[in-house]
Amino acid sequence: MAWQSESIMARRGIAKGARGAHHVITEKDQGKYHYVYGPYVEPVLTIDPGAVVSAETHDAFEGAIKHETDSPSKILNFPFLNPQNGPIYVNGAEKGDTLAVYIESIVPRGPQPRGTTVVMPEFGGLVGTGNTALLNPALPERVKKLEITAEDGTRWNDKITLPYEPFIGTIGTSPEIEAISSLVPDYYGGNMDLPDVGTGAVIYLPVNTKGALLYLGDCHAAQGDGELCGVAIEHPTVTTVQVDLIKGWPIAWPRLETKDFIMTIGSARPMEDAARIAYRELCRWMAADYGFEEIDAYMLLTQAGRVRLGNMVDPKYTLGASIKKSFLV
Amino acid sequence: MAWQSESIMARRGIAKGARGAHHVITEKDQGKYHYVYGPYVEPVLTIDPGAVVSAETHDAFEGAIKHETDSPSKILNFPFLNPQNGPIYVNGAEKGDTLAVYIESIVPRGPQPRGTTVVMPEFGGLVGTGNTALLNPALPERVKKLEITAEDGTRWNDKITLPYEPFIGTIGTSPEIEAISSLVPDYYGGNMDLPDVGTGAVIYLPVNTKGALLYLGDCHAAQGDGELCGVAIEHPTVTTVQVDLIKGWPIAWPRLETKDFIMTIGSARPMEDAARIAYRELCRWMAADYGFEEIDAYMLLTQAGRVRLGNMVDPKYTLGASIKKSFLV
Amino acid sequence: MAWQSESIMARRGIAKGARGAHHVITEKDQGKYHYVYGPYVEPVLTIDPGAVVSAETHDAFEGAIKHETDSPSKILNFPFLNPQNGPIYVNGAEKGDTLAVYIESIVPRGPQPRGTTVVMPEFGGLVGTGNTALLNPALPERVKKLEITAEDGTRWNDKITLPYEPFIGTIGTSPEIEAISSLVPDYYGGNMDLPDVGTGAVIYLPVNTKGALLYLGDCHAAQGDGELCGVAIEHPTVTTVQVDLIKGWPIAWPRLETKDFIMTIGSARPMEDAARIAYRELCRWMAADYGFEEIDAYMLLTQAGRVRLGNMVDPKYTLGASIKKSFLV
Amino acid sequence: MAWQSESIMARRGIAKGARGAHHVITEKDQGKYHYVYGPYVEPVLTIDPGAVVSAETHDAFEGAIKHETDSPSKILNFPFLNPQNGPIYVNGAEKGDTLAVYIESIVPRGPQPRGTTVVMPEFGGLVGTGNTALLNPALPERVKKLEITAEDGTRWNDKITLPYEPFIGTIGTSPEIEAISSLVPDYYGGNMDLPDVGTGAVIYLPVNTKGALLYLGDCHAAQGDGELCGVAIEHPTVTTVQVDLIKGWPIAWPRLETKDFIMTIGSARPMEDAARIAYRELCRWMAADYGFEEIDAYMLLTQAGRVRLGNMVDPKYTLGASIKKSFLV
Repeated sequence: MAWQSESIMARRGIAKGARGAHHVITEKDQGKYHYVYGPYVEPVLTIDPGAVVSAETHDAFEGAIKHETDSPSKILNFPFLNPQNGPIYVNGAEKGDTLAVYIESIVPRGPQPRGTTVVMPEFGGLVGTGNTALLNPALPERVKKLEITAEDGTRWNDKITLPYEPFIGTIGTSPEIEAISSLVPDYYGGNMDLPDVGTGAVIYLPVNTKGALLYLGDCHAAQGDGELCGVAIEHPTVTTVQVDLIKGWPIAWPRLETKDFIMTIGSARPMEDAARIAYRELCRWMAADYGFEEIDAYMLLTQAGRVRLGNMVDPKYTLGASIKKSFLV
Repeated sequence: MAWQSESIMARRGIAKGARGAHHVITEKDQGKYHYVYGPYVEPVLTIDPGAVVSAETHDAFEGAIKHETDSPSKILNFPFLNPQNGPIYVNGAEKGDTLAVYIESIVPRGPQPRGTTVVMPEFGGLVGTGNTALLNPALPERVKKLEITAEDGTRWNDKITLPYEPFIGTIGTSPEIEAISSLVPDYYGGNMDLPDVGTGAVIYLPVNTKGALLYLGDCHAAQGDGELCGVAIEHPTVTTVQVDLIKGWPIAWPRLETKDFIMTIGSARPMEDAARIAYRELCRWMAADYGFEEIDAYMLLTQAGRVRLGNMVDPKYTLGASIKKSFLV
Repeated sequence: MAWQSESIMARRGIAKGARGAHHVITEKDQGKYHYVYGPYVEPVLTIDPGAVVSAETHDAFEGAIKHETDSPSKILNFPFLNPQNGPIYVNGAEKGDTLAVYIESIVPRGPQPRGTTVVMPEFGGLVGTGNTALLNPALPERVKKLEITAEDGTRWNDKITLPYEPFIGTIGTSPEIEAISSLVPDYYGGNMDLPDVGTGAVIYLPVNTKGALLYLGDCHAAQGDGELCGVAIEHPTVTTVQVDLIKGWPIAWPRLETKDFIMTIGSARPMEDAARIAYRELCRWMAADYGFEEIDAYMLLTQAGRVRLGNMVDPKYTLGASIKKSFLV
Repeated sequence: MAWQSESIMARRGIAKGARGAHHVITEKDQGKYHYVYGPYVEPVLTIDPGAVVSAETHDAFEGAIKHETDSPSKILNFPFLNPQNGPIYVNGAEKGDTLAVYIESIVPRGPQPRGTTVVMPEFGGLVGTGNTALLNPALPERVKKLEITAEDGTRWNDKITLPYEPFIGTIGTSPEIEAISSLVPDYYGGNMDLPDVGTGAVIYLPVNTKGALLYLGDCHAAQGDGELCGVAIEHPTVTTVQVDLIKGWPIAWPRLETKDFIMTIGSARPMEDAARIAYRELCRWMAADYGFEEIDAYMLLTQAGRVRLGNMVDPKYTLGASIKKSFLV
């Protein structure tokens, strides 16, 4: 991880990139998983900046969908969906700071077939939903149970195998006074479903309340842009992250850094507003930290910006806008 | 209130329209006002179905904007905006029930000039905002302080007086596990800013958690369709409502009834999704309770439906779709 | 029509409200009806400002749907839909001028049942469409044929009769170099489906090309806000309008005037953009002609503006924003 | 061009991938460039399937912006923007067929600095516009003139050089009866501003009228996803394409093929509708030609689909949805 020593996390974080204590949150440690991002529960763990945390995450259905003959609409009990580990209290974190989370590894766990994806009524990008409320009949329900290994990926069918490209579907800090469903992505992170939030990346999250209260869960073994039917390849994992704290760096929306690019992440409806948020944040970041005038950043992004669509199915849609570090000169 | 004896509230509510005990929530009783709709605080009051409650509401700025020379962006402290009375615990209310709230009266209170409206940065229907995130410079801030009486209305300037047409800007029940900013409208009500939620109407709200946990506040002395600049004529009031409980009538979104029409209320972005929600709910209501086939309701609403735009400025936009009772034959 | 002598049309039009020659465009005169608004065809009629024109309009299906057992999807031949009378060349009209069109009368014609409404696949406000492209199965097709008289209205069924509240669904001028489907509403007018464009109103339309080239058609016997299923009560009519020309009054979008209010009309997707267009135009109009500062107009419309939803089904959605003349002091 | 012999163009086109006659359209040959996509002008050239055409394209401003001190808002004369070569009449093409256009080369031409990009009022992804109509003040105008060579790319400033990654910003066939501004993208192609429409790709376009009437222009030397400020690196070129005709393959929206993937292209507002169009078309294509059931395609695209944002600035936004050919087994 050579590049990470040059990351913003390493340069500005309190722990300066040094790996601290290693904590583990097993299913048993976690006990009750959470369905909202909020400040109204006790932390499951308290850490210092630099600490490494390995968490046993559930899949988005908390393992409830076991067979291809199961009916998701009968089994699932809204709003008790998308269970989250946490919250993790980070010592010293206060409103106006930023949490840096390096994603060290994501390892599938649990008995095979570990992977699940479904089509269910009123959910998905190409069907009527509770928001795009229509009178058309629903599609039939469908469940696929899938074998996943880190080495071989996801066996989709006899002909198709999807490489294992895991990422954290839902990660974020607590809002200050709100407690928001873990199905929602917003300024504090949450259910962004953005494949760039994968192994080797650093995600930066705004701290809104004392201790930051980091939550995470909902890891995907693979996902296309947009998470079209609403359900990626959901699977339980052991996810390991290193957490650092950047004091006095207030950010309005999540940011992400890899070896090659920096990215800002916006979540909103309609989708163009998610793109506007992401790109405006990127203009502002380039202006604040890389010596651009805002209008020059705007003009350069017109020629060199890149967009990744996270989800087009959640209560807000998520897009990341990025620029290569090689242009930040 | 002759018609109300024929209302759904009177016909299906536990109290059958009978006025129960009268409770008062003064500023002192309320103590701390609330900025989220959620289940994580103690009720300020517990009532039986049929009870009448008079609450001293604050204006949306909790009275902090006192002079036309004040700077809203300096004074206001997000997310501590739009203070709400409540929550009121309704005995017997459970998930799947519906609360019926008859709006008996709204009376302005407090020293003159009691009314406030403002233009502030990043907020409003004709400016860039945090969601429609743009690089354009902001408009200048503006504050108007306004004299309001129930008799004469709001004195806008030497030439224009706006009639006193008060309504409750924000009213709703608690979500089951979420705690959502009182700036947001959604399926449980909240910051709908819909002028039809005025004196003489009954609003029906879904019960999501034990006791329903009714909140209300943010009364407006007048408002145009859409609440264009984001701030109606905000004013403190004594607002009196009668609350009843309809068991076993699960509704997905708020509904409203007056002498002449029934209305369903949707909140979403983009605006067409708010319209779809409202109209689909109205189709479903007409099918469930008025003998229509859903497709016949759809066709009749095409010719006879009416739409009221509540707000085009809040985190979700709100629209009401209605049909005259005279067509429900 | 006392108020019309005080209308902008009468005050600023070349003919000053005086009724000129009366022209008639019968079906035979029209010959080929048109399916685009554009400058690439010969005018069917040339008039002087002040002239009155009575046109025999077809229904939106050109009379092709005759029976309730007909299948619209088999009979209709896209893009040959929504046939229009015209274009009418107005002497003296040039780019930058405005056409004023007073809607004098709309009279149903043709054999009974004259009225038609339908539900058809991939069209309507509560179904997936070619734009909101989904995988859900379609609703069944439905056709209703309806008896209409000006006196008694539309007989919907044994129990329901809709009052005759006719308006022109589609009216506008030609774009300068484009030829746009008559299914589309835009800055030049077109398929706005806005019930305020009815008898007794004056609509103002921007002139984009020499002669203005006025088209009209698609009269509705009644329509709810939003034209929910996509098809109002379509019927053939004799529609009579008086046309005047206002020189040197460039307007960006259609405007409308009645005895009591002025209105601006916006068409766009998503729906909030239609609202923004309409309200911004109204701010600008109040600033240009009624002595307001733009920001004061913005603040007053927040308290006193009204919104009418025309359609939520056409390629662009249409909204009118209005303010009472009594506030324009 | 080994892969192209396996392309759909080669397998299903009339010319079977064989290169036919080579035609040239110089500026002089073209004479008047066009600002609408429509059937109301004479073809500039008639070709047989298989023919190769080299066209001298103008930049989007027809060369009118020459200096960094120029004011675009004063110089540009809407709607006379985005000049197009063509139309090219393809012998044998009829409604219901598909045109296949292989993009052979794009070579910059004209005196240096050949490249132009600008920021201008009411246009762009991070500013208020004619549709997202706001009251905020505009950004200042800005013009950048840029040196471009095929070898070295675009010299942005002393530190940044953008690689030459040219593509055709605007390409399409004529609608059947409409004539639409070349600023608009839609089902027939047009101003898609999608970087995948570059050298080495084949784009498939629906034929809507006899002869297909192919237009093209608006080549970009580089562009970021979304074309953020509304203006890529515009430059004049010699663009060479090979055109073939696929009989009896009706497609609803443009499609694209490269060595590695197939893509469908949707254009709409709001942006999610562009994504829905693109992904639904891809589901349908996979079902029609690659042996998938539609719902299986939907589920696989959820895990393996990719999205490219073309523009978020034109009258409709454009997105391409793609899947690797390696998954089409």
